[in-house]
Amino acid sequence: MLSKNQIKHIRQLHQGKFREIHRQYIVEGEKMLNELLKSEQNILHIYALESWLTQHEVYLKKHNIAYTAISENELKQISGLVSPYQVLALVAHRTFHFSAFQQGIYIALDQIQDPGNMGTIIRSAEWFGVKGIFCSEDCVEVYNSKVVQSSMGSVFRVPVYYLPLAAFLKQHQSINTYAAVLHGDDVYNKSFNDTSIIVIGNESKGISNPILSLCKHKITIPNFGEAESLNAAVSCSIILALSKK
Amino acid sequence: MLSKNQIKHIRQLHQGKFREIHRQYIVEGEKMLNELLKSEQNILHIYALESWLTQHEVYLKKHNIAYTAISENELKQISGLVSPYQVLALVAHRTFHFSAFQQGIYIALDQIQDPGNMGTIIRSAEWFGVKGIFCSEDCVEVYNSKVVQSSMGSVFRVPVYYLPLAAFLKQHQSINTYAAVLHGDDVYNKSFNDTSIIVIGNESKGISNPILSLCKHKITIPNFGEAESLNAAVSCSIILALSKK
Repeated sequence: MLSKNQIKHIRQLHQGKFREIHRQYIVEGEKMLNELLKSEQNILHIYALESWLTQHEVYLKKHNIAYTAISENELKQISGLVSPYQVLALVAHRTFHFSAFQQGIYIALDQIQDPGNMGTIIRSAEWFGVKGIFCSEDCVEVYNSKVVQSSMGSVFRVPVYYLPLAAFLKQHQSINTYAAVLHGDDVYNKSFNDTSIIVIGNESKGISNPILSLCKHKITIPNFGEAESLNAAVSCSIILALSKK
Repeated sequence: MLSKNQIKHIRQLHQGKFREIHRQYIVEGEKMLNELLKSEQNILHIYALESWLTQHEVYLKKHNIAYTAISENELKQISGLVSPYQVLALVAHRTFHFSAFQQGIYIALDQIQDPGNMGTIIRSAEWFGVKGIFCSEDCVEVYNSKVVQSSMGSVFRVPVYYLPLAAFLKQHQSINTYAAVLHGDDVYNKSFNDTSIIVIGNESKGISNPILSLCKHKITIPNFGEAESLNAAVSCSIILALSKK
């Protein structure tokens, strides 16, 4: 049973400004909860239907995770989904602090706005073993529920750093940067350094000039048709795949 | 000025069943309209604010495209967008009939459900010069507004065929098929035939057994992390990119 204040608090967390104030975010649905329970995230509270709890109660008790049984009606009130699935968790924000580059591929995102793209990039990043994602401070927030959902749980595992991107790249000019642009070198002919940053720009405007001027390589996925551009998450994923070839 | 009946008719077209009955669909927004006007689609009527019409009236008259000036309030009533942009067009369905394979890459989609994925696949398909997309009849409808939007206009140009996919593949067993699966041959080591079909399955269930059993090659994008899978549109796009290497 939920109090009015609890309901209000959870509903507020569907908005970015309240997530920022409380340093909490929401994870919903059975599949995402499975990923969450396996992860190292700090789960603050789980609200679930009895049907879900009977299957998970032993695990929750063993791991000391607080939970409350709620009704379908209560779940509807706190869920951000059109058809809520059984369970909703409150999770503490986890802030990653970048210390030093390891050998491997990194991604830098300049003003990525679409939460679906952000989530998909994080999912592909994990698939290809990316070491970390640097986001300009005006990228969509990583704890937006659509980002969490479309990352399919990768958001619980991939380090994502929000930072002043131009200043950061300036500080690390020794690291090779590969900017995805429309008229650059053919990506098929590029080889990637052991430690590299792939830079992806905004969905409609591309990479902003201050960032672009700091990038050593400009690369392009060749176009074999009339389409004007590729989706940002798709471009990023293709470049990641080609960096492994 | 719109009549009640016109408003009702346009609003109905936001639903698949009415698009099917009337064989019409909706295209919205300035950017999409630019793509539409350049395409070979049969535009039935354009509803636009004066601001848009002043810029396009000469073109519309020259090409004999019917249009009506509407108010912002009327646009809100007929638009499917939260923030409608200036213009909305009614377009006639265009049905592609497959005749014969040309040399090149084709895509087959088995039960793709997410409109964003469908649109992104069509967009990538055009980028990589795909000759056509075969869809199982239970794929999301290509004229769903989210498909149109996320295809960024490629839907106006790429041939998409809805057909009984298993029967079709059975009929064309001489064409090499490459099924994207989780445990197949490493895609980096595969070379693609001059005429090939890349087969992509449902977002959660993958390729259904009747289709899979008809596929000659099973291919996998190797995993370098812990993620369980890649997004379907991303997998498709990566395989397309690798087929060009």
